[in-house]
Amino acid sequence: MKKNISINQINKKVYEIPEILNDREQINSFLDINKDKKVVVVQGLGFVGAVMSLVCANALNEEYVVIGVDIADANNYWKIKSINEGLFPVIASDPKIEEFFRIAKKKKNFYATYDSYAYSRADIIIVDINLDVQKDSKFNGDLIKYDVDLTNFKKAIKSIGDKCKEDCLILVETTVPPGTCKKVVKPIIEKSLQLRNLGIDKFKLGHSYERVMPGPDYIDSIQNFYRVYSGIDKKSADSTEAFLKTIVSTKKYPLTRLGNTNATELAKVLENSYRAMNIAFATEWSRFAEESEVNLYEVVDAIRMRPTHSNLMYPGIGVGGYCLTKDPLLASWAKKQHFGSKEALMQSEMGVKINDKMPLFAFEHMKKTFDLIDLNGKKITFLGVSYRSNVADTRYSPVERFYNFCLKDKAKISLHDPYVSFWEELNLDINQDLLSTLNNDIEILIISTSHDEYKNSERFIQRLINKESMMIYDTVGLFSENEIKKLSNKHNVKVLGRGDL
Amino acid sequence: MKKNISINQINKKVYEIPEILNDREQINSFLDINKDKKVVVVQGLGFVGAVMSLVCANALNEEYVVIGVDIADANNYWKIKSINEGLFPVIASDPKIEEFFRIAKKKKNFYATYDSYAYSRADIIIVDINLDVQKDSKFNGDLIKYDVDLTNFKKAIKSIGDKCKEDCLILVETTVPPGTCKKVVKPIIEKSLQLRNLGIDKFKLGHSYERVMPGPDYIDSIQNFYRVYSGIDKKSADSTEAFLKTIVSTKKYPLTRLGNTNATELAKVLENSYRAMNIAFATEWSRFAEESEVNLYEVVDAIRMRPTHSNLMYPGIGVGGYCLTKDPLLASWAKKQHFGSKEALMQSEMGVKINDKMPLFAFEHMKKTFDLIDLNGKKITFLGVSYRSNVADTRYSPVERFYNFCLKDKAKISLHDPYVSFWEELNLDINQDLLSTLNNDIEILIISTSHDEYKNSERFIQRLINKESMMIYDTVGLFSENEIKKLSNKHNVKVLGRGDL
Repeated sequence: MKKNISINQINKKVYEIPEILNDREQINSFLDINKDKKVVVVQGLGFVGAVMSLVCANALNEEYVVIGVDIADANNYWKIKSINEGLFPVIASDPKIEEFFRIAKKKKNFYATYDSYAYSRADIIIVDINLDVQKDSKFNGDLIKYDVDLTNFKKAIKSIGDKCKEDCLILVETTVPPGTCKKVVKPIIEKSLQLRNLGIDKFKLGHSYERVMPGPDYIDSIQNFYRVYSGIDKKSADSTEAFLKTIVSTKKYPLTRLGNTNATELAKVLENSYRAMNIAFATEWSRFAEESEVNLYEVVDAIRMRPTHSNLMYPGIGVGGYCLTKDPLLASWAKKQHFGSKEALMQSEMGVKINDKMPLFAFEHMKKTFDLIDLNGKKITFLGVSYRSNVADTRYSPVERFYNFCLKDKAKISLHDPYVSFWEELNLDINQDLLSTLNNDIEILIISTSHDEYKNSERFIQRLINKESMMIYDTVGLFSENEIKKLSNKHNVKVLGRGDL
Repeated sequence: MKKNISINQINKKVYEIPEILNDREQINSFLDINKDKKVVVVQGLGFVGAVMSLVCANALNEEYVVIGVDIADANNYWKIKSINEGLFPVIASDPKIEEFFRIAKKKKNFYATYDSYAYSRADIIIVDINLDVQKDSKFNGDLIKYDVDLTNFKKAIKSIGDKCKEDCLILVETTVPPGTCKKVVKPIIEKSLQLRNLGIDKFKLGHSYERVMPGPDYIDSIQNFYRVYSGIDKKSADSTEAFLKTIVSTKKYPLTRLGNTNATELAKVLENSYRAMNIAFATEWSRFAEESEVNLYEVVDAIRMRPTHSNLMYPGIGVGGYCLTKDPLLASWAKKQHFGSKEALMQSEMGVKINDKMPLFAFEHMKKTFDLIDLNGKKITFLGVSYRSNVADTRYSPVERFYNFCLKDKAKISLHDPYVSFWEELNLDINQDLLSTLNNDIEILIISTSHDEYKNSERFIQRLINKESMMIYDTVGLFSENEIKKLSNKHNVKVLGRGDL
């Protein structure tokens, strides 16, 4: 991909990235038509920031004008253009996204830009950029080491500090290593303000992590869900609370204020570490169940009857997505780097390590269950490449590792996903047409994501039945017992998992 | 203690253990007065077996005659005598225990013995003996290594096989390493039957683990709770089901049959490993919260609002009791020893290792929070030594390790527990009178178990307020916020935990 080109992942339109990056005039004229409204600027137009922008543009108890900011590079410039051209850059099954975007277009209160000038006009700046963990892993998934590089995060915060009003509210939603707001964000903002000869006692800095769940309840996972928040001081916490009350249904989902920003930062990574650990537990025990010829699903079903054990998980092809694969490491890193502890969070780190091996376990299980020595020349079709049902998000998808194992085994692979046309991480085009995908010769069909398009469809099942006998490996519990029965008359069907992890 | 002496732990009565162990006549005459009833023999009169015997003697849908069997040694002989003398050997806060025992005495359908002759008269034999893990740990709690020795368990099973009818039902309730019914129990029973020239195709062998919860719902945790069961073959599973239906309220709490005995054995250790892991998670994160000056309780409270996270635990003085401290190791041991796996259950083993360090963390936390360099000469009083509220069970109580740390630091320690008069593990007499305990000079008062006697008592709080200023370390969240306020006017109160672990 050329550096000065950015391709719209929704409609494939090609944009040239301008050499001179100045959007000040457009920002000003956009704000001119939205006078007297408070200005919310969202930093980052990814899976959280883009949808957060929509929620702010459709706030419950205030009329905001919203500007989304992202970087003018190949991966992000198209999102800015797409929003301004009237096409939302995130595909998901939640109909509210389309609706909220349509209303924002009508109201003309949502604009996107690459120009950090936007921060100078903001009353509220919401930080929704990514903070990555650098994982160094072996091909099989073994985690060798990891690190957290704050360089880009600091740069992004500085770009705010260099422009923002001295009394703005900066609300960090990014999942950060605990301690970051106090030890990293606050000093950067203060230093920038001081260099501009502005006071450092008027700005407000809050932290309130999102619990965004891409999929059918995308919007509701922001607007209609519990929120935890904090501020670096009382006025920051008050200001954060006041803002959140305008966008979240706080009557039904009351806010919880925690004592300091360390606490909310810690709460977020704790939540995800807990979930990742529970998945790792399922992973380990599924291996044990296999060895002892036990059907783990019936065991887990039986135990889940106990209220205290109702969140026991089932194993699957692996855990993916942006959060669970890294947050426990963020936490453990912060424990040592930000607070000088000598001990890592062993249980949480181990959770990630075990989960990173899940695709390998699933791959080995598939070969064992179908009695396959290798996959040399085998025609394999994957249904679904995103890490979760009904989203276009392929970041850290466990399907990637599974795909690579098949590839190394010299399988001939074809891929389908209704939400993904281009698999960024593997630089691969994806077939989005299910009919033509199923018309291929298939020896092994792997159900790798439980997208709705494959679910409860008589026609889909009938198409599968009409095909030559093949192996079907259901890693997500797509099929009902009845469907498995029907399919098994013709095909060799094996089930690994049950639903999203 | 003399070897031929056994002391009743309830009323301190001393029994001489007879040299000639023959109880056949008494068993026969007991059964003579209970003709036409099916005979249930319970092997083991510990915290499960004794209460299970009561539940069988008070079965819902059948009139059983019940014999409890234990060994005639110093630790157990008194239980046999106590039952037959009309005093139940387990103290707990559940009033149903007293009631069930009273009814059994009236019906004269419950007898206890040391004589394995009882098995020859049984229609149903329930195995409720212990199967221990041998843990080799450092003083600080570090687990060096562990092993599982099946010698005593095999001996107990053989004592059944040597006597039982060829068509009896043997129901194992003991928590065993997965694989044990198939690989250990079945061969032993078959061999014994063959040596007696009996058939090996008539006996039934089932596994259905108990979920006994000592305390206020002791009986209900057997009679009114979900049960999972299995058998080594269909007739065994059917027979187990039929029996369980007579003692469990299966309409409200339906039974779940699993595919084989490995599955139920695995389910039990999975349940407890999961719980132990969740506690370990709280332990690790409480350390992190401490380092980052975060109030973990407010964080956990905030996160528990999420239904998927509602079983997040709080940290405490440590995890104790017979199950959580060893079951994850039983599982990991079985994975390698019974099924030849090369991998341990790392997450589960780590859970135990982290939990074993919790008393040390709690001890260090106490010293830090009260700014104490050491405890040399400090007058410390513990309220509660049992591992759990309202029970007399001190097995693997985390208080033991905490006590030892204080002792090594040369503290002067006094102990109170309303349920425990003698601390077997430490060979210590315990004061059972709260008033005289509180009349001592106290510099540090440690609330180590949340017994009801300490709870919601105006009088207790007033007594504490009347004392000289002291440090109060509440490891179980005994006090309400209001009570803490009152106490804090005079004393230095710090809270570590919230309730039982």
